[in-house]
Amino acid sequence: MGRYVIGLDFGTNSCRSLIIDVANGGELASHVFPYPSGKDGVIVDAGDPHLARQNPADYVRGIEVTITEALKKAKAVEPSLSPLDVIGIGVDTTGSSPMPVSANGKPLCFDQRFANNPAAMVWLWKDHTSYAEAAQITETAAKMRPAYLSKIGGTYSSEWWWSKILHCKNMASEVFAAAESWVEICDWIPALLTGDLDPQHIKRSVCAAGHKAMFSASWDGLPDKEFLDALSPGLGCLRDKLYMNAFTAEKRAGYLSADWARTLGLSTSVAIAVGAFDAHMGAVGAGISPGTLVKIIGTSTCDIMIHPHQEKLNDIPGVCGIVDGSVMDGYFGIEAGQSGVGDIFLWFVNNLVPEKYGATQEEKFRTLGDAAATLKPGESGLLALDWNNGNRTILVDVRLTGLLIGQTLHTEPHEIYRALLEATGFGALAIIDRIEEFGVPVREVVNCGGLAAKNPLLMQIYADITGRPMKISRSEQTPALGAGIFAAVAAGQSSGGYDSIDDARQAMTGTGVVYTPNAGNHAIYKKLYALYRQLHDGFGAKSWSGGMFNVMKELLTLRDQVRKS
Amino acid sequence: MGRYVIGLDFGTNSCRSLIIDVANGGELASHVFPYPSGKDGVIVDAGDPHLARQNPADYVRGIEVTITEALKKAKAVEPSLSPLDVIGIGVDTTGSSPMPVSANGKPLCFDQRFANNPAAMVWLWKDHTSYAEAAQITETAAKMRPAYLSKIGGTYSSEWWWSKILHCKNMASEVFAAAESWVEICDWIPALLTGDLDPQHIKRSVCAAGHKAMFSASWDGLPDKEFLDALSPGLGCLRDKLYMNAFTAEKRAGYLSADWARTLGLSTSVAIAVGAFDAHMGAVGAGISPGTLVKIIGTSTCDIMIHPHQEKLNDIPGVCGIVDGSVMDGYFGIEAGQSGVGDIFLWFVNNLVPEKYGATQEEKFRTLGDAAATLKPGESGLLALDWNNGNRTILVDVRLTGLLIGQTLHTEPHEIYRALLEATGFGALAIIDRIEEFGVPVREVVNCGGLAAKNPLLMQIYADITGRPMKISRSEQTPALGAGIFAAVAAGQSSGGYDSIDDARQAMTGTGVVYTPNAGNHAIYKKLYALYRQLHDGFGAKSWSGGMFNVMKELLTLRDQVRKS
Repeated sequence: MGRYVIGLDFGTNSCRSLIIDVANGGELASHVFPYPSGKDGVIVDAGDPHLARQNPADYVRGIEVTITEALKKAKAVEPSLSPLDVIGIGVDTTGSSPMPVSANGKPLCFDQRFANNPAAMVWLWKDHTSYAEAAQITETAAKMRPAYLSKIGGTYSSEWWWSKILHCKNMASEVFAAAESWVEICDWIPALLTGDLDPQHIKRSVCAAGHKAMFSASWDGLPDKEFLDALSPGLGCLRDKLYMNAFTAEKRAGYLSADWARTLGLSTSVAIAVGAFDAHMGAVGAGISPGTLVKIIGTSTCDIMIHPHQEKLNDIPGVCGIVDGSVMDGYFGIEAGQSGVGDIFLWFVNNLVPEKYGATQEEKFRTLGDAAATLKPGESGLLALDWNNGNRTILVDVRLTGLLIGQTLHTEPHEIYRALLEATGFGALAIIDRIEEFGVPVREVVNCGGLAAKNPLLMQIYADITGRPMKISRSEQTPALGAGIFAAVAAGQSSGGYDSIDDARQAMTGTGVVYTPNAGNHAIYKKLYALYRQLHDGFGAKSWSGGMFNVMKELLTLRDQVRKS
Repeated sequence: MGRYVIGLDFGTNSCRSLIIDVANGGELASHVFPYPSGKDGVIVDAGDPHLARQNPADYVRGIEVTITEALKKAKAVEPSLSPLDVIGIGVDTTGSSPMPVSANGKPLCFDQRFANNPAAMVWLWKDHTSYAEAAQITETAAKMRPAYLSKIGGTYSSEWWWSKILHCKNMASEVFAAAESWVEICDWIPALLTGDLDPQHIKRSVCAAGHKAMFSASWDGLPDKEFLDALSPGLGCLRDKLYMNAFTAEKRAGYLSADWARTLGLSTSVAIAVGAFDAHMGAVGAGISPGTLVKIIGTSTCDIMIHPHQEKLNDIPGVCGIVDGSVMDGYFGIEAGQSGVGDIFLWFVNNLVPEKYGATQEEKFRTLGDAAATLKPGESGLLALDWNNGNRTILVDVRLTGLLIGQTLHTEPHEIYRALLEATGFGALAIIDRIEEFGVPVREVVNCGGLAAKNPLLMQIYADITGRPMKISRSEQTPALGAGIFAAVAAGQSSGGYDSIDDARQAMTGTGVVYTPNAGNHAIYKKLYALYRQLHDGFGAKSWSGGMFNVMKELLTLRDQVRKS
């Protein structure tokens, strides 16, 4: 008799359920539900391009639709499957995506008073309305509590928890006042499934807490009241309404509530795992272990490693976050990333590629990729920086921009496209070099996410640039698979699952295609990488003597002045 | 009774005749003849992108067609016009565009033996097959005859006379051996019209000789035999087959031959002026006088000034050429230029602008221009270098390439288009600054050429960047008008023309539209220009400490190695 878990993956535009065989990680079926609210599931504001919110009702509906439909499909594939064989549900989501809730844990936007108030909705990860608050938090922490910044790369982001809450306090004080607590959606959804939404009962994810809310055992959990009040008088009071503990994701948040069991046709003995962010669960779904760098490559890139507790781990300058247990219990989670990867390719194709390359975006990508694949490294004479969306790691600087050099009167779009692919490869290598330089060996690179599966040229370029094999995760849905793995551990061996993440990971994950580096290409890329680093340090590193550090900044300052005037 | 001159302008793809009223420069009619040979008039070689040749038969046919048709049109406009009222013909051409000729001055390619041999044709200005020879000439001159380099900006170009002849000697020795002489087409065409093509009789233009063949009164004309033999043993012998004297363009090459008079329906008393290059005659057609910078703006830009003999004139580092009499007798001609202007815009529009901006190139330019005009300076956050085709002035370096900085995920094509327009404006300002820095005041800027007439946004941007009014030449055909002015002087006052270029210029030229700088925009552009100069010097100037001088060069070296491998 099979045992199954369900991985529930909440993305930016849709959510998905994946039905997974606990024995071997086999993926029986999945179903995707595009969020009905807003534009592609995101509430936007024509007057403020920074705003990105979400309607939590979409998640509720998404759970019902995707689990029901995925189970139907799974049953068609495996007729012996009974819904009662499902032993656990795991949840991964975007983040930091906090929302204000009432005393009973209901989203404030479900309240008639705040029904159309974006401040009462989910503040989606990519909401950047809080950039001023982020700068204030960084500045205040640097003065008062430098330790708070040490594990998050030195800079607090506008995408994160406290920036958003502080912006809400500043700009929508009625919502802030009405909020009985704030919850990351990766914590709220598991709680919803258990039927207990009391904010004081919700088991908070250490992944979200540590990476986004400056939560650490080193300083008694969340930032202290004095610090919070220094940010904004009164913010300190919120601390008591939040949480004192945070949990790794193999812990059980509870069991499926009777209501949900009825709705979904499952039993009330289904274990609900504590939630975590998509990238972290994706890393587990990709088979992470010490020495493995998992790259989740999509519009941006998230790079995840784990490092055993018992081994020394230095701070790694420029690496966004090092958080105990954020990926797996017993390990430090190390998170790095590139703020623009697929997004840069999309920008280029959508803006600067004429129709002779194809009528649709998909055709253009195919034609460009085919033509770019015929080029040798160095052949175009082009070199780009991958900073159209700033640089998350290793410079931690949003005020950086793109750069393209080497164009002649004969430069063609597919040459630029390849230069952009290469730029992200050089950015990836800069991260690997930095991590190794600070004592964490990278022995293996496993890639997952949309681009890893769909862009073989990109993967071959990464192999050639880094001189390392690029392994591709066997699963194309690693976050959902990772969520399922945590569910299998939350259920435990006695229920047909596992008692340790290591056991579950080994049984349920694997790699597929491997791209092997070409030595000749690698030799050329070594030279190009030296030039990339020259531009990278010259334009990106303040300390670089005789550099160009001021140029991008002054252009942005001038741009902002002109736009305001 | 009116008196008329004909300006004959030989361009890259076509030639034109312009019928001009001697009294006031009024343009009665013109006719254009696209060269029938090759691709758009240029003989190319699919295997060698550097090769660009021309068939001189196209010029012969072009003279007949364009003069005949232009006269017909003029007669329709001005019925009283009699062909016998035409008192002179002036000729301007591209250059350096030399061709090998036989003893009777016939192009070698008219000889059956060499009929399809590109080496026996006209070596068009933009032929770059001789880049290795150019480097050799620069190197040899720097060692043996540094004076030869002092008036041509320090670097001998692959586009110029000796590079091409030397390449012919190296690669097509049978053609070199058969050549009784070599002639610039600006010298050959006037001689053709006089009926005397004997190479020893052809009056050579000081403009071509001085700017392209290192001819100077300071060292007895052309480079000496020892130097030429050092370039290639035997090249020295060619010196005797060339010329000892060179002439300013208001001199008379002769009178129209009886054959041509019959063919064209003109009299044999038509004076034929000595030829010169299009830019230099264009400068006169635009009304050049001391203190006036004339910018001829097309695919590339040529900047011309004149400086009176009696005033001291320093060498101006990085300025391509200072040649006595190359524009007008009694003045030094100062030539500078930007190697890519309109060509950069064309490259961008033809390669990187999708069809939503328009179905045709023309529509795309219009839409881009309209959208770019709504932007304020600095608003896009973009900055570009105008080096897609290298930098002629003030860096004199073909091994430079384009650079674009500041792109985000939201950057749109019209923003890049404007950044490219601005880049050429910054390049223009760098030239003005350099010329003034070395003691030649620029009191007025007059623009002519296709882009001056057709791109008001570009001209406004130039005004705003330089903080100077941009005047537009009244004539849109300044090279042909300039050729006509020289014809009027070659004919002389006694024939109804003029006895001095100054008189002719004052009577026959004028300016039209003036673009006035906007003070607010100029203030922003001052800041952007400072950043442009930082990139310019950092990537372009070897002496700049801590710079990026190596980057473009190393990319090109790598490119060339990879392409060869």
